[in-house]
Amino acid sequence: MSDPTLAQPHLVEVHTTTLETVVTTHNHNHRPSINASGEKKKIVGVFYKGNEYAKLNPNFVGCVEGALGIREWLESQGHQYIVTDDKEGPDSELEKHIPDAHVIISTPFHPAYVTAERIKKAQKLELLLTAGIGSDHVDLKAAAAAGLTVAEVTGSNVVSVAEDELMRILILMRNFLPGYHQAVKGEWNVAGIAHRAYDLEGKTVGTVGAGRIGKLLLQRLKPFNCNLLYFDRLRIDPELEKEIGAKFEEDLDAMLPKCDVIVINTPLTEQTRGLFDKNRIAKCKKGVLIVNNARGAIADTQAIADACSSGHVAGN
Amino acid sequence: MSDPTLAQPHLVEVHTTTLETVVTTHNHNHRPSINASGEKKKIVGVFYKGNEYAKLNPNFVGCVEGALGIREWLESQGHQYIVTDDKEGPDSELEKHIPDAHVIISTPFHPAYVTAERIKKAQKLELLLTAGIGSDHVDLKAAAAAGLTVAEVTGSNVVSVAEDELMRILILMRNFLPGYHQAVKGEWNVAGIAHRAYDLEGKTVGTVGAGRIGKLLLQRLKPFNCNLLYFDRLRIDPELEKEIGAKFEEDLDAMLPKCDVIVINTPLTEQTRGLFDKNRIAKCKKGVLIVNNARGAIADTQAIADACSSGHVAGN
Repeated sequence: MSDPTLAQPHLVEVHTTTLETVVTTHNHNHRPSINASGEKKKIVGVFYKGNEYAKLNPNFVGCVEGALGIREWLESQGHQYIVTDDKEGPDSELEKHIPDAHVIISTPFHPAYVTAERIKKAQKLELLLTAGIGSDHVDLKAAAAAGLTVAEVTGSNVVSVAEDELMRILILMRNFLPGYHQAVKGEWNVAGIAHRAYDLEGKTVGTVGAGRIGKLLLQRLKPFNCNLLYFDRLRIDPELEKEIGAKFEEDLDAMLPKCDVIVINTPLTEQTRGLFDKNRIAKCKKGVLIVNNARGAIADTQAIADACSSGHVAGN
Repeated sequence: MSDPTLAQPHLVEVHTTTLETVVTTHNHNHRPSINASGEKKKIVGVFYKGNEYAKLNPNFVGCVEGALGIREWLESQGHQYIVTDDKEGPDSELEKHIPDAHVIISTPFHPAYVTAERIKKAQKLELLLTAGIGSDHVDLKAAAAAGLTVAEVTGSNVVSVAEDELMRILILMRNFLPGYHQAVKGEWNVAGIAHRAYDLEGKTVGTVGAGRIGKLLLQRLKPFNCNLLYFDRLRIDPELEKEIGAKFEEDLDAMLPKCDVIVINTPLTEQTRGLFDKNRIAKCKKGVLIVNNARGAIADTQAIADACSSGHVAGN
């Protein structure tokens, strides 16, 4: 049920391991916890519709039909659980439930935008829960001012994202897509693929950010016999660093020209917004491959597109 | 310059690490070695044309234009080196040189078919060299009867194939292609991807064959926290087996139903031809993913296609 193409690094530090234990807040001025109150709550879940796909996989719980697989549990506890995909505008199902919802659950893939205006209307609201990682759809300032808890399921996607990154590194390095297209069309033009297909072995791979996801990526890269580099504010625990065999780089701009592959594993902050702009891309090695499974806004889309056209970036 | 989609496991056991050291034979009734003789030789290389792609990458040596990057060396040794892509029929460039060629070099991607008839005409031929792995394009019986050396560059593609296999496992497991197509078309249908996208972590992966390539694959899979199984005639060295953490399976048919992913890493022999037929595929778990970077003939194409249609095989 993972959705790697859309997965994003966490933005808000909340420690929770399961939906049932969501109690921590990043706002200590919060209303009473849902678990502690013992009251019966109205919970509104906003997900995309699974339609025909929901029928194909009974374990596909991220959609309206699957309802996160928590309906039975919530209702057995006496809570009311409304689930919908209809979330935009004043006549939407979500809007209708805003005034008396205690909890709104949503995901970054089909987000329930919880604006300051909606928060003002939501007089009973206590908890805004992201079933996954990334709460950009919530006006965090307004939520904090209203004393709401905004929580995510930290760590829920880290393995997915790291696996997905390694997949994308291999797809770019080995030039998979042109071969795929040839196979589909029944063509046979080996030169068209081979002239820019390489082994990952022996290449230099650098991650910008070595938090939860970056570390998992480095661990998975280890047997590929690459030269592994990482840039971060903090150094990885020395024992883990030794085990992985990755070299710490203090200066991002000094690391970039060494890398055949750059992977972005940093949260979107005011410091990282537009980090990969025209000037920084120019510092990268000609022909570099860049994998960004983090927020798109960390890179300047136009600058990346221009560098792909010029050949300075060979794949993104 | 690797071509993973076409890479194949070795069929003929010849130990050589570079083109310059190709001296071992799998036919001990051979004519004198090219290196030992000291004579000036006529060497014919048959490769595909690189055309515009050859210009894009000066290190792209697998094409006619690149000529394996050995022209200077061969000519400095006084040898004549003819390179062509024209290889079919009686009027081809290859055919013209058959009577006085000492060496024919080719690849499995654009093979110079060396038939019994051509071998009869090739009175000066000493060495048939595959610049890569896989010599199906040579009539091996006729070559052996004529005392020819047939050599390949053993080990030249093992890392490429193992990397490519891991890429394909991740592409299938994470359901990459539907997401790619959506991105290209500007669509947004998360359910269409997510209902069958999974993490590799925790899955059972079995390799049929754990020779050079199978071992490299298992090593690369290790940090993914899978349950690793392998079937082979021989057991891996106990220390390596322990390091990789893969479990030996004596009985292929007992291993298959345990696997979420099956990777074929066995040579094509009379024993393995059609190994994955209708009956054997039926023994696999419903929804299994099968990656075959080995010879296509190890699987019954129609049986695989039928199993993909029925859903018994979820990806191939």
